[in-house]
Amino acid sequence: MCELLGMSASVPTDICFSFAGLIQRGGATGPHSDGWGVAFYEGAGYRAFHDPRASVDSEVARFIQNYSIKSTNVICHIRKANRGRVCLENTHPFSRELWGQAWSFAHNGQLKGIKKRTLNFYHPIGSTDSEHAFCWLLDQLRERYPTRPKSRKAVHTLISELVADIATLGIFNILMSDSEVLYAHCSTKLHWLTRCAPFGDASLIDADVEVNFANETNPDDVVTVVATQPLTANEAWQKMDAGELRIFRHGKVPGS
Amino acid sequence: MCELLGMSASVPTDICFSFAGLIQRGGATGPHSDGWGVAFYEGAGYRAFHDPRASVDSEVARFIQNYSIKSTNVICHIRKANRGRVCLENTHPFSRELWGQAWSFAHNGQLKGIKKRTLNFYHPIGSTDSEHAFCWLLDQLRERYPTRPKSRKAVHTLISELVADIATLGIFNILMSDSEVLYAHCSTKLHWLTRCAPFGDASLIDADVEVNFANETNPDDVVTVVATQPLTANEAWQKMDAGELRIFRHGKVPGS
Repeated sequence: MCELLGMSASVPTDICFSFAGLIQRGGATGPHSDGWGVAFYEGAGYRAFHDPRASVDSEVARFIQNYSIKSTNVICHIRKANRGRVCLENTHPFSRELWGQAWSFAHNGQLKGIKKRTLNFYHPIGSTDSEHAFCWLLDQLRERYPTRPKSRKAVHTLISELVADIATLGIFNILMSDSEVLYAHCSTKLHWLTRCAPFGDASLIDADVEVNFANETNPDDVVTVVATQPLTANEAWQKMDAGELRIFRHGKVPGS
Repeated sequence: MCELLGMSASVPTDICFSFAGLIQRGGATGPHSDGWGVAFYEGAGYRAFHDPRASVDSEVARFIQNYSIKSTNVICHIRKANRGRVCLENTHPFSRELWGQAWSFAHNGQLKGIKKRTLNFYHPIGSTDSEHAFCWLLDQLRERYPTRPKSRKAVHTLISELVADIATLGIFNILMSDSEVLYAHCSTKLHWLTRCAPFGDASLIDADVEVNFANETNPDDVVTVVATQPLTANEAWQKMDAGELRIFRHGKVPGS
């Protein structure tokens, strides 16, 4: 299994605090020591950092923990390999371009038979079930909509059908983004919380780190964090239901 | 204009020495201060580091300069923007998946009318001529060969035709890789050298750094470095001709 961390924010926000907690689970407070990766969106721009080493021993992870990259959407993954050997090409998040946007994807779980599904446009570089599932999902989106449809709702509806379909094959906890929206689908385990004014204190579970978000934010900021397991001890994380898909944009549920 | 740096090596090799020279040209000894990026291949795996800041002021660049990533193919670019604003999505190298391989591309030059060329499969995320040219090139490869042909030579021949075609639109100095091969095409300015036994000393032009490669290598290692301008003062860089395409694999010209 693996652990996921995602963020959707109304203004570019760094993820150093949550990341500091998560990486401890990659070999120290958790067993997810088979590589890690993090993807940051800055507008339409996309950059990712990957390392096939355990995050707790990774110099790249230490650098990211202390280097503030302000982003509106973030996807992070620490890996405990079950399918696919430990190597760079099997390290999440995976990314592909669709409709002139950089899509990225990270997965926790196992899928039985996903590799039997035919791929047309997108093909895996590594050997994980996860990357195959991502390629299939984007294939279906592209086949149905060769160019981006004007209706965001049409995209959301199709994605909700596709993730429900894949989830019939096993465990499919995922985070996915197209640079505008963060999709979070829960099969078995995914939690989220939204931080907004009045901001308060937060303490990491996995490291001796506290922050008072009132000192770090403006009153209008809205930041939603999604994680496999709650990262802080003193905040009200909400557990997602099995089969639930949540969509966040600028930190909020669109339309809310 | 911009500057390029590439490496093809017989064994995983770090590029810290050459990179230390190049990044000085991104704001200190050269004017290429509109962002930079570097892509590393580790087998089929691909990871890239991008920063829209000047490399000489970039914390990510300082980290990469001191962090040894051993790679068989590397592509690096420092940008002086002419087309397309300074932002993450306009920062080279660009990458796309084709035939289940991560292709990457960096360009120095300007192309007149490239955006009139129709794209079918790959679409730019940013607004540069360069990314459009890369998308068009991969589109043509995919259209001609929907799956990877067994003959490497067939791919090389088609690429040589495509880059010659694009080069009619302006200046097209490029580095491109599919994880196995490094392609270097020269319109106006590109140099290369191959380091092999007996290895000797090298001194950077842009920084007070020397290395004795005899202490860093094994006798069988072969490492080719390609750069817009020579990076060292005391080695025999070879200037490429206008219209010349060179292909390197494991540090050597294939078949040599």
